[in-house]
Amino acid sequence: MLENVDLDKSLSKEEYDDIIEDLTIRIGELQRKAWKTDIPTIIVFEGWHASGMTEIINRFLLTLNPMGFDLYTTGKPCYQEEQKPLLWRFWTKIPKKGSIAIFDRSWYRRVVIEHDGKGKVDKHMPKCLEGITYFERQLTDEGYLLIKFFLHVSKKEQAKRYRDLKKEGVPLFIVEEEEQEYLNEYDRHLPVIEGILERTDKASAPWTIVEAEDKNFATVKVLAKVIESIENKIVEAESNAEATQNDQVDNCVIPNIDSSILEKIDLDKSLAYKEYKKEKKACQKKIAQLQYELFRNRIPLIVLFEGWDASGKGGSIRRLAQKLNPRLYRVIPVGVPSNYELAHHYLWRFYNEIPEAGHIGIYDRSWYGRVLVERVEKLCNTHEWKRAYREINEFEEILTNYGTIIIKFWTHIDKEEQLNRFKQRENTPYKKWKITSDDWRNREKWNLYLSAADEMLQKTSTSWAPWTIVESNDKYYSRIKILHTVIDRIEEELKQRGLQ
Amino acid sequence: MLENVDLDKSLSKEEYDDIIEDLTIRIGELQRKAWKTDIPTIIVFEGWHASGMTEIINRFLLTLNPMGFDLYTTGKPCYQEEQKPLLWRFWTKIPKKGSIAIFDRSWYRRVVIEHDGKGKVDKHMPKCLEGITYFERQLTDEGYLLIKFFLHVSKKEQAKRYRDLKKEGVPLFIVEEEEQEYLNEYDRHLPVIEGILERTDKASAPWTIVEAEDKNFATVKVLAKVIESIENKIVEAESNAEATQNDQVDNCVIPNIDSSILEKIDLDKSLAYKEYKKEKKACQKKIAQLQYELFRNRIPLIVLFEGWDASGKGGSIRRLAQKLNPRLYRVIPVGVPSNYELAHHYLWRFYNEIPEAGHIGIYDRSWYGRVLVERVEKLCNTHEWKRAYREINEFEEILTNYGTIIIKFWTHIDKEEQLNRFKQRENTPYKKWKITSDDWRNREKWNLYLSAADEMLQKTSTSWAPWTIVESNDKYYSRIKILHTVIDRIEEELKQRGLQ
Repeated sequence: MLENVDLDKSLSKEEYDDIIEDLTIRIGELQRKAWKTDIPTIIVFEGWHASGMTEIINRFLLTLNPMGFDLYTTGKPCYQEEQKPLLWRFWTKIPKKGSIAIFDRSWYRRVVIEHDGKGKVDKHMPKCLEGITYFERQLTDEGYLLIKFFLHVSKKEQAKRYRDLKKEGVPLFIVEEEEQEYLNEYDRHLPVIEGILERTDKASAPWTIVEAEDKNFATVKVLAKVIESIENKIVEAESNAEATQNDQVDNCVIPNIDSSILEKIDLDKSLAYKEYKKEKKACQKKIAQLQYELFRNRIPLIVLFEGWDASGKGGSIRRLAQKLNPRLYRVIPVGVPSNYELAHHYLWRFYNEIPEAGHIGIYDRSWYGRVLVERVEKLCNTHEWKRAYREINEFEEILTNYGTIIIKFWTHIDKEEQLNRFKQRENTPYKKWKITSDDWRNREKWNLYLSAADEMLQKTSTSWAPWTIVESNDKYYSRIKILHTVIDRIEEELKQRGLQ
Repeated sequence: MLENVDLDKSLSKEEYDDIIEDLTIRIGELQRKAWKTDIPTIIVFEGWHASGMTEIINRFLLTLNPMGFDLYTTGKPCYQEEQKPLLWRFWTKIPKKGSIAIFDRSWYRRVVIEHDGKGKVDKHMPKCLEGITYFERQLTDEGYLLIKFFLHVSKKEQAKRYRDLKKEGVPLFIVEEEEQEYLNEYDRHLPVIEGILERTDKASAPWTIVEAEDKNFATVKVLAKVIESIENKIVEAESNAEATQNDQVDNCVIPNIDSSILEKIDLDKSLAYKEYKKEKKACQKKIAQLQYELFRNRIPLIVLFEGWDASGKGGSIRRLAQKLNPRLYRVIPVGVPSNYELAHHYLWRFYNEIPEAGHIGIYDRSWYGRVLVERVEKLCNTHEWKRAYREINEFEEILTNYGTIIIKFWTHIDKEEQLNRFKQRENTPYKKWKITSDDWRNREKWNLYLSAADEMLQKTSTSWAPWTIVESNDKYYSRIKILHTVIDRIEEELKQRGLQ
């Protein structure tokens, strides 16, 4: 993509001043309009070192209203970032609706630095680039505008700029000390960069190569491209809004309980109290030991619970956590998203919460809300929840690639048992707060939820993150099955990785 | 505080199980009530290493509804935390109204580790403890409930526990590798800890010493103390709410323009365009160099702008930033706080934004909103804005102690000039969006704002962070005065610190 770029393009100071004044007014208008139409925009700056990126970005920033954007400079990851998958630090920084996030270097730079050591592309690079295409597609699918610039200069120009910077006494590497390695590496670096650009140049997130030898020209090109992209996006968003209005009929859910796997579950399984107590004690002790194995080996663990209201998720979580070290685990209850969370991609709030390496995240409900409650209660449209199966599988794949163990439980009870438990809650003073009109309302939609759960279990039980359905009419049986499943899975993973 | 503690207290398993069941129900009720009455609670756990803190905390956590709390484990600061004052990482974690933040080790632990090197308390410890008392008082003044526990065990018991942990194969230091240093240092450590406890045991934030040799006893004591404190706080909050209702009359502001310093400002000062251009260029070049001096020496810089609507803050900020490196500065526009921000101490959102070491934060309006717009528009009560002068001075003192340079500008114009500028904005199509009915409304309250600004300038011009009033009827004069002030102040600071 870089071979035929004409690097001689330039603009005189007068031409530049003239054009920039008009463009500044125009981008101000568009920024306010994007704010009103709730369009979130991500602008990525990549490019050669010494391609003038800082100055071009600064000129670009000064045309914007500072109220509406954030600039993120991507340097070496800090300790916390190192304990999470590569994309975590970027996911957590995506803008909310109406805002602009500008990345001065981005996930691309990190992929190069982390996987292109001295003269050799490592074998994880392709998986990493695949993760990036997931990430970008998930964003654009949800209405994000993604604009990617690569600032291009020739080898000769780069060498000249190094000399000039040195003369001026400007520090060469403010953020990226790691970049030292790429000094005088232009030729070796070129095919790596071209390969990445080609693999990630998608219709929904294309690259724009910016001829950056002349900063005036480059700034204008950047600004013009941003203006054009936002204009197009606003038109698209407006026509989508119309289309959605005509699309309501599509939003009805056809229950599909014929092929239910849940209906076939044997809910009569049970366990005597005495045995339960003995087993519980042994399992908790074992899990307390295993947590330190995970910690020593820096393996993150996710244990997530979905299931019917009153199916015993909370109680199981307490038994799971009882002997754990609170420095190493966290219970993450997932409820109704806040307005601030709703103003982001729906996966955003979950990325914010993933456990760091060696830690355990226990989820009381989870990202599966998208294909359960949000689907049934029509909190998102059909297109969105249907797309979510793939998005969730990709999300879990990315976590697994990083080394995360994911254990997923569906706690299953029947309708009668739920009724008993609801009544019991209503009749116990200190449990009464637990039962609300929401619970009764959800119960009326039992079949819709059943059908949604069934489809979820089928479409998101992957080799890397399988579901375990837990027969939960009997609490003792249910809790012990959960504890055993967690132990077995951790031990199996440790073994597979040659750690036990 | 530790010498007379009876460490033999204990509870049998049966007594414990009995008590804990009741307390769990009670704390559940209180947690919901605190949620409804908007009380934010901070619980601090400190104590000897191997005092059983993790287990006691875990037992305590399991009595809580996970929806309503966050646990923070305080370890070694990460890179980003090292680039900010000590208290930053805690300020950013204070809970929102109705929530509980639990600190497993806290600012106290950090003070000990950072200022009590091998056998010698360093000279910054007292300043640091003073900062902590500011921090805690600011929180409790704003209605936060602060509960502090110190888990106490004897030297003998500590030694025994080390042996036991080693036998069980539990890693001794999960978070705090630095704590290694305190192994076998009980005797030397004791007076340091006692000194800290005594200096920070305040009526509004007292310490509770927990006899922790028996974990049952310790857990119950912790839980009972939390319950008692929340109960008292709810009573207090309810009676405060009544008092506030009867307190409306106090909320009227008496304009006080007699002693105005602003009235005496000579607004006729001006500068010719030609000279302005020349000066601007020279100043921008100088500032671009100075930013690298700040960066090299890891000095954070805050430049903040307050002033009348249309007094030229935005334009001055653009000139200040024009030649800066965007990796080293950030413009922070301060507008109406979001609901999420309002659910915290008002300084919280500003702590979230302070520049890291070596970087520049440019504020378009700031924390002074508390004593300007919030005072005049009655968005807070009289007691709150009157208290804010001290809080702000303390806030700036803490930043200064960390090494931050703070430069504060009040851009001053007269009422007539403002009218001209408002009209000009209304008549220029691409500037029209800048002027809203808010601006006209604020203008009607000119005298109230004048009086608030006057009081602010008098009460918050400190030796460490003085105000500069900028005569801004003439934009050229104003901008150049600002640029010069920034340059002079940075150079003076570098000189004073022996860096130039």
